[in-house]
Amino acid sequence: MENFVFQNPTKIIFGRDTERQVGMEVKQYTDRVLLHYGGGSIKKSGLYDRVVASLKEAGVDFVELSGVQPNPRIGLIREGVELCRKHGIRFILAVGGGSVIDSAKGIAVGVPYEGDVWDFYLQKAVVKQALPVGVVLTIPAAGSETSPASVVTNEEGALKRDIGTDLIRPKFAILNPELTFTLPPYQTACGAADIMAHVMERYFTRVKETDLTDRLCESTLRTVIKYTPLALQNPTDYAARAELMWASTVAHSDLLGTGRIGDWASHMIEHELSGIYDVAHGAGLAVVFPAWMQYVYQEDVRVFAKFATRVWGVEPDFADLESTALAGIERVKDFFRSIGLPVTLTELKIGTDRLEEMAAKCTERGPVGNFKRLDREDVHRIYRLAL
Amino acid sequence: MENFVFQNPTKIIFGRDTERQVGMEVKQYTDRVLLHYGGGSIKKSGLYDRVVASLKEAGVDFVELSGVQPNPRIGLIREGVELCRKHGIRFILAVGGGSVIDSAKGIAVGVPYEGDVWDFYLQKAVVKQALPVGVVLTIPAAGSETSPASVVTNEEGALKRDIGTDLIRPKFAILNPELTFTLPPYQTACGAADIMAHVMERYFTRVKETDLTDRLCESTLRTVIKYTPLALQNPTDYAARAELMWASTVAHSDLLGTGRIGDWASHMIEHELSGIYDVAHGAGLAVVFPAWMQYVYQEDVRVFAKFATRVWGVEPDFADLESTALAGIERVKDFFRSIGLPVTLTELKIGTDRLEEMAAKCTERGPVGNFKRLDREDVHRIYRLAL
Repeated sequence: MENFVFQNPTKIIFGRDTERQVGMEVKQYTDRVLLHYGGGSIKKSGLYDRVVASLKEAGVDFVELSGVQPNPRIGLIREGVELCRKHGIRFILAVGGGSVIDSAKGIAVGVPYEGDVWDFYLQKAVVKQALPVGVVLTIPAAGSETSPASVVTNEEGALKRDIGTDLIRPKFAILNPELTFTLPPYQTACGAADIMAHVMERYFTRVKETDLTDRLCESTLRTVIKYTPLALQNPTDYAARAELMWASTVAHSDLLGTGRIGDWASHMIEHELSGIYDVAHGAGLAVVFPAWMQYVYQEDVRVFAKFATRVWGVEPDFADLESTALAGIERVKDFFRSIGLPVTLTELKIGTDRLEEMAAKCTERGPVGNFKRLDREDVHRIYRLAL
Repeated sequence: MENFVFQNPTKIIFGRDTERQVGMEVKQYTDRVLLHYGGGSIKKSGLYDRVVASLKEAGVDFVELSGVQPNPRIGLIREGVELCRKHGIRFILAVGGGSVIDSAKGIAVGVPYEGDVWDFYLQKAVVKQALPVGVVLTIPAAGSETSPASVVTNEEGALKRDIGTDLIRPKFAILNPELTFTLPPYQTACGAADIMAHVMERYFTRVKETDLTDRLCESTLRTVIKYTPLALQNPTDYAARAELMWASTVAHSDLLGTGRIGDWASHMIEHELSGIYDVAHGAGLAVVFPAWMQYVYQEDVRVFAKFATRVWGVEPDFADLESTALAGIERVKDFFRSIGLPVTLTELKIGTDRLEEMAAKCTERGPVGNFKRLDREDVHRIYRLAL
């Protein structure tokens, strides 16, 4: 086990009707917020009205900024920064999924900074201050509701880049599983792939003697594997939606990474995909992760055999652990297929024409991944394996 | 799953040599602390010298209060309160196990309170303020390093009572598994029983649809079951000590209780034992918990069958789940015995003479437990089952 520091102070408010507490929570910080969200779905569902009513009841004034797209853009973040400055706003309330939260975090670091907020994502500047962010979550997937990360796309150059700092962990996150009843099947499945990817990035480590976190990871994966099909069959199954929602937060809360060194290559390889092609992040991960597994499993077959056995119930063949490992990888692909996700680039209608460019961009800051260090050529091979 | 609020902001600093960071951590709050500890063990091990060196290096002044006993006493807490007032101290640094931390928390709530600090434990007053507390942990067991609880004994009347408030969660907890290398076998085993009890109190719930937290509980138990014998065989096995130390914190961090209603009767039944007899808390739990299980398992045999199967590897007999449940309870007893703990009151040299008195005291504020509500007569029967 590696030495580590773990601290995740986000207050989680979980359960039915909890969005009605948002005004009270915000009021502990301020009486004026930027209300940040995506498109019309929160209006259609009535969530917007309930949030606004709760803010008003608590005496919290707000300015709105909607229009966050999947793979949130730096352009809208710059707009949000200006809006906050203009209205003297010191708190960002994100109502939505990972994209909205990541966009809110971008605004939160941009407002107190004199330069252009994209500097942080280019690592040209270090975040020293951030406005507080609060969350009403509508999509269990990204885990951004308690994470220190924000992933943003710059339209010019199709660059998808991230920042990470404890300063942007949300102060509170309101998680009502009922808000996910209306999620379309494809988005539910993409969310599941994202949750699983957050666990698997941490699970596949070369660090030895990480028994407790191995088991906590396996637990979280098993819950997602059990409940995703149930949520797809019956979108208003509260128990299934609740398990997925809590799993998504636990998966990316850092607890499952304590004492380990995560891999994270698959995320970086996927970022290039969704930076260029505007693919849903979860769908991109469903394509990239199995290809990554195939490419790297021989680095430590026992870890993959353990994964196959404990997570997927594959009977271990002790005389041929490689076959056990490979069976586990097949089970991952089968599972993603069974919930309606693509597992090849071809299914995403992505051909070979830009694979070299993506491999180059992915590794422009050096090799990626820790389970196996991957250079440009390795990443290119993984894209080809995913075709 | 029940609605819940979860927030645990304690900063964990985990790993080898981490006690050398204590001065730096404290310095973020103050430059003067009460250094609170038990007896000579931290001096013998050299820990005292390293903590003092780190404080001095960071320019942190300190006043000492040692002498905390297992089952910490209100008398010493009152002394600590006076000492802090006299020296204008606003931070308590606990170096030790659960008793030292619980005593530090008592002092922390006592200093800003005008009345007698025991009022809080009698529920005559509500905690509204507390000094910050920091921890260097030496015993993985109580989980007090991130918990909102403090359990204290009043010598007069042999009353053991607790308080719970987020205000007393430690600001930071330094966890170096090497500090536990010198723990005697009996204390290591008692710690394991305490950790397991914290998980089992949460695991045995009547709340339905708690899949993720069921699994997280099972994971934590399996890690403790695997590594306790290894730590006993080889006290300087870092991996084993590290797994136990992290498991002890995770077990009592509240995460494993999210969405569930825990039971906690066994803890209350045990408190009466160790209030009167000065039994080690973990040993008391090893005696009480199996008796509680035998008394209540019929309330929901399936939960106990799941426990037997998933935690202990008992093959389920679907035609006779009761036998599976009972086999699980036997495995708990076998395990405690195998690590050198008592599983009967007789082994603790406790007879029948004060059982009725303890049952009355345990239930003086009403029935205890949630898996099955237990009145005075129930508790008395559990004591008798434990004989």
